[in-house]
Amino acid sequence: MAQHRNRRVILKTRATGLPTPELFDVVEDDAPEPGDGEALIHNIYVTADPGMKGWISNAVNYASVETGATMNSFGVGVVIQSNSPDITEGDYVVANTGWQEYSVVSPDQASVRKVDPADALLSTSLGALGHSALTAYFGLLEVGRPNAGETVLVSTAAGSVGSAAGQFAKIKGCRTVGIAGGPEKTALCLDTFGYDAAIDYKATDDLEAALREACPNGIDVYYDNVGGDTLDTVLGLMNQNGRVTICGTAATEAWVPPPTGLRFERHVLVSRLRIQGFILFDFQDRYEEALTDIRQWFKEGKIKYREDIAEGLENAPAALAGLYEGRNTGRQLVRVRPDPTL
Amino acid sequence: MAQHRNRRVILKTRATGLPTPELFDVVEDDAPEPGDGEALIHNIYVTADPGMKGWISNAVNYASVETGATMNSFGVGVVIQSNSPDITEGDYVVANTGWQEYSVVSPDQASVRKVDPADALLSTSLGALGHSALTAYFGLLEVGRPNAGETVLVSTAAGSVGSAAGQFAKIKGCRTVGIAGGPEKTALCLDTFGYDAAIDYKATDDLEAALREACPNGIDVYYDNVGGDTLDTVLGLMNQNGRVTICGTAATEAWVPPPTGLRFERHVLVSRLRIQGFILFDFQDRYEEALTDIRQWFKEGKIKYREDIAEGLENAPAALAGLYEGRNTGRQLVRVRPDPTL
Repeated sequence: MAQHRNRRVILKTRATGLPTPELFDVVEDDAPEPGDGEALIHNIYVTADPGMKGWISNAVNYASVETGATMNSFGVGVVIQSNSPDITEGDYVVANTGWQEYSVVSPDQASVRKVDPADALLSTSLGALGHSALTAYFGLLEVGRPNAGETVLVSTAAGSVGSAAGQFAKIKGCRTVGIAGGPEKTALCLDTFGYDAAIDYKATDDLEAALREACPNGIDVYYDNVGGDTLDTVLGLMNQNGRVTICGTAATEAWVPPPTGLRFERHVLVSRLRIQGFILFDFQDRYEEALTDIRQWFKEGKIKYREDIAEGLENAPAALAGLYEGRNTGRQLVRVRPDPTL
Repeated sequence: MAQHRNRRVILKTRATGLPTPELFDVVEDDAPEPGDGEALIHNIYVTADPGMKGWISNAVNYASVETGATMNSFGVGVVIQSNSPDITEGDYVVANTGWQEYSVVSPDQASVRKVDPADALLSTSLGALGHSALTAYFGLLEVGRPNAGETVLVSTAAGSVGSAAGQFAKIKGCRTVGIAGGPEKTALCLDTFGYDAAIDYKATDDLEAALREACPNGIDVYYDNVGGDTLDTVLGLMNQNGRVTICGTAATEAWVPPPTGLRFERHVLVSRLRIQGFILFDFQDRYEEALTDIRQWFKEGKIKYREDIAEGLENAPAALAGLYEGRNTGRQLVRVRPDPTL
């Protein structure tokens, strides 16, 4: 088998604040060889995720990328060499590819799954039929557990995870309210993602009043991707036995030194709240169960999504930095090479 | 039936900080008459609870006492007149009596339950076989859900609720660590309540280091009665999938203006924590289920407890104020009149 040259993006310096392109470098070397039970993937799309801020920071996190290592990411590609009985050359697979052209994966791991390009655009396997949707599915339905008729509030409501959470809540019969930044995203919430109300947090100087107006029956479930002051305000408006899913902390730039906010425990006690954090990876064994539901909703036309695709691996760091400036709309992907299924 | 004169303690002024005796007044008037389905109770003991700070404050709470009204409390007494088929003269009952000599109760309410003075000292029906134990039972076992072998940390560990939580955790096979204030309470934790380790928070200037030493395997469940800085410190030491029961917020004197602390959501996300508040009243329908377990443990000699009994209704306000200075040891009760079962 011919040796492939592999371009990859490595982490040069750990971040103390928001990710910037300067933290990364592009290097080129020989692609790794798959061992026994492994396969070599030629990547097509890789992801830029808000959670990456934590992966590359100095603060304690659930996942971490070492300096000098290939930046970790999800990706989808085609199998070009397989030493595994579970996977065949030509299969399309989603995996933890990292930001590189070629990746070696172990198909027996739960993080690797085959996708059928006939189902939908290949890129959706990383978003609306992939990690974004899976995150929203478990975070909303398993952690938040909304009941029909309840009010579900979502932050970064027009984002890939937020818009999925909002639509899943709507499918479950909830009143849905979104918080988004700017008039375009707010309009997207109302016109495309079917929220019953949407708040442009950049255009209000009294979020509490805006929330009270948008949520006349209070808030039963808060699907939170941002934390910070918004979380503090929402906690005071939660209904008794309310649930808060902590999915992301995008509003806080850095955790060193430790930032402060309003004390939260009184609301938790008085309103009997349940605040719960979760990480998608913990649900890997249940992806297929979730995707069965999500594919069905997708086929029924109940799921809208947006993608923002940057061209070229070398632009992955800039695409990542753009997330924290709110520059993207919807799922941020990076096209590593032309999509052969288009 | 002869009309009884009823001495009672009323709330004169709502609190802005910690409760003081000056907020209350003792008044005397005719005892109320029980209506259809009601009964008149001659009270023996009433309680002074840490939660009362919230009931009489200006801040939003799960329960509230109006100015001019009899101070709300639990109590135990004897039925002296009954218009209810559920209860007979001479029965001993626990109820929401309030701080007064005579109370009218509706025996069909879940908050009213008969007690058998042959089981244990009558006073324990408000503590070690009553609300303190019930609070610890549901807060630890239903909300915290510890597994055998896990480390359970308890604040106000020598208090009536804390000591019950610590002992229940021990019965469930956990390693138990207590936080208490002062050498006497710390010794009580170790010598009487069976904690594996105890920390005198007043004697340490590095709580984090003390906790790391006392909890070498991290903290799986935190039964929290205090909130505040202690909670902030503990959150950073919780194990993955850890659970925090928010049972009280004794460390914070006042919630107006809103106090601040370290931001918490990053710990919740990274360690997949579940932080949950609860109020005992929500479990009223399940008291008997819990008391069956607790009585059994009590009979087996597995439950130790302490009581601190103030003499005379007029001393209830001072007993309440003493709670926040840590003056009491164990369950704080007020003896309204001599206990006829002794």
